[in-house]
Amino acid sequence: MTQETIDQILKFRDDRDWKQFHNPKDLAISISLEAAELLEVFQWSGSDVSDKGKEAKIREELADVINYTVLMADACGLDIDEIVQEKIRVNNEKYPVEKAKGSSKKYDEL
Amino acid sequence: MTQETIDQILKFRDDRDWKQFHNPKDLAISISLEAAELLEVFQWSGSDVSDKGKEAKIREELADVINYTVLMADACGLDIDEIVQEKIRVNNEKYPVEKAKGSSKKYDEL
Amino acid sequence: MTQETIDQILKFRDDRDWKQFHNPKDLAISISLEAAELLEVFQWSGSDVSDKGKEAKIREELADVINYTVLMADACGLDIDEIVQEKIRVNNEKYPVEKAKGSSKKYDEL
Amino acid sequence: MTQETIDQILKFRDDRDWKQFHNPKDLAISISLEAAELLEVFQWSGSDVSDKGKEAKIREELADVINYTVLMADACGLDIDEIVQEKIRVNNEKYPVEKAKGSSKKYDEL
Repeated sequence: MTQETIDQILKFRDDRDWKQFHNPKDLAISISLEAAELLEVFQWSGSDVSDKGKEAKIREELADVINYTVLMADACGLDIDEIVQEKIRVNNEKYPVEKAKGSSKKYDEL
Repeated sequence: MTQETIDQILKFRDDRDWKQFHNPKDLAISISLEAAELLEVFQWSGSDVSDKGKEAKIREELADVINYTVLMADACGLDIDEIVQEKIRVNNEKYPVEKAKGSSKKYDEL
Repeated sequence: MTQETIDQILKFRDDRDWKQFHNPKDLAISISLEAAELLEVFQWSGSDVSDKGKEAKIREELADVINYTVLMADACGLDIDEIVQEKIRVNNEKYPVEKAKGSSKKYDEL
Repeated sequence: MTQETIDQILKFRDDRDWKQFHNPKDLAISISLEAAELLEVFQWSGSDVSDKGKEAKIREELADVINYTVLMADACGLDIDEIVQEKIRVNNEKYPVEKAKGSSKKYDEL
């Protein structure tokens, strides 16, 4: 994600004076709500797990989730690249390639 | 988010041969689950809506949500900058500055 | 659900003096978190949408969701039978049998 | 919840021939989605954690969650009283009164 996109997200918020509502707890709630709207696209799809015919809604709802993750990172003073790379290091320990390769098990069941 | 971070996320997946599990429906489920883990940090915090004392867990759980949004975008062939900027244009229509400024109402209640 | 089961749920809470934490917002968060734990049972199951091999976890996690719905109803002074029957009446209007029969569409798409 | 309420929920489903869509995975998704709609009632409420002014929406959305828990129990052949009482016994072990009284910590942090 370019800095330009991030700046657009923050400008949208600031133009509307919405920072006042963006406390960490309500932002975490908002990320959950947008994640649910993304999931709703797949409700009652049964064993059809693909994105076929659902592309337009997925674009919109996935964008909403990303939007709020940027807003939460900003509200908490976090650098996205830093926290993601940090987590990849942690996950490298939890899921060593030799154990995790080809398995969908959680780390505590590997 | 730099391309390097995105590449690290995709490399982590490919090193473990996990693409086979990453169908859109299960990725949408996974985003919801990680969003819930982020939200859990605030469970029983009552009227304390801040991130104080919760920074370490927020870093980890927010990173997990972002991680899965990148994986879902990749699985669905979506460009993150494109879909986010597209959604900002839609939201600019739904939430015109003059109406939305300083209000936390949803667009259909403005 | 018998009154005895409901009484056991409330007694469990009161024995631990937990009513002080049970404000409506945190209870709504808790219902979402337990719903996510139930959903996690199906993560990475792909097109296998059944409960086979997952029975023990489903029992536990579904019980947790129900548990918190009882606690929230109590915290908000709501009668479960009353609100459910009220909602069925609303849904009867939204989903008339002749239109909704055999369709998984939402009411606004019927 | 009386048997009459449960019967009304199941009759509503059967009148519309909806059992065909009610596989366990999609029902777990649906419980999560309804839990999110309940949580949405509290979005942007900040440190106001009460139900004041939100009663009508809480009634509706909590009823929807309960509705789907009944449908999932039925689809999985589970008896609600049995699984809830079973879980209370488990929780009695995890949260002994002497340790858990007055604390909102999780069992693994007690």
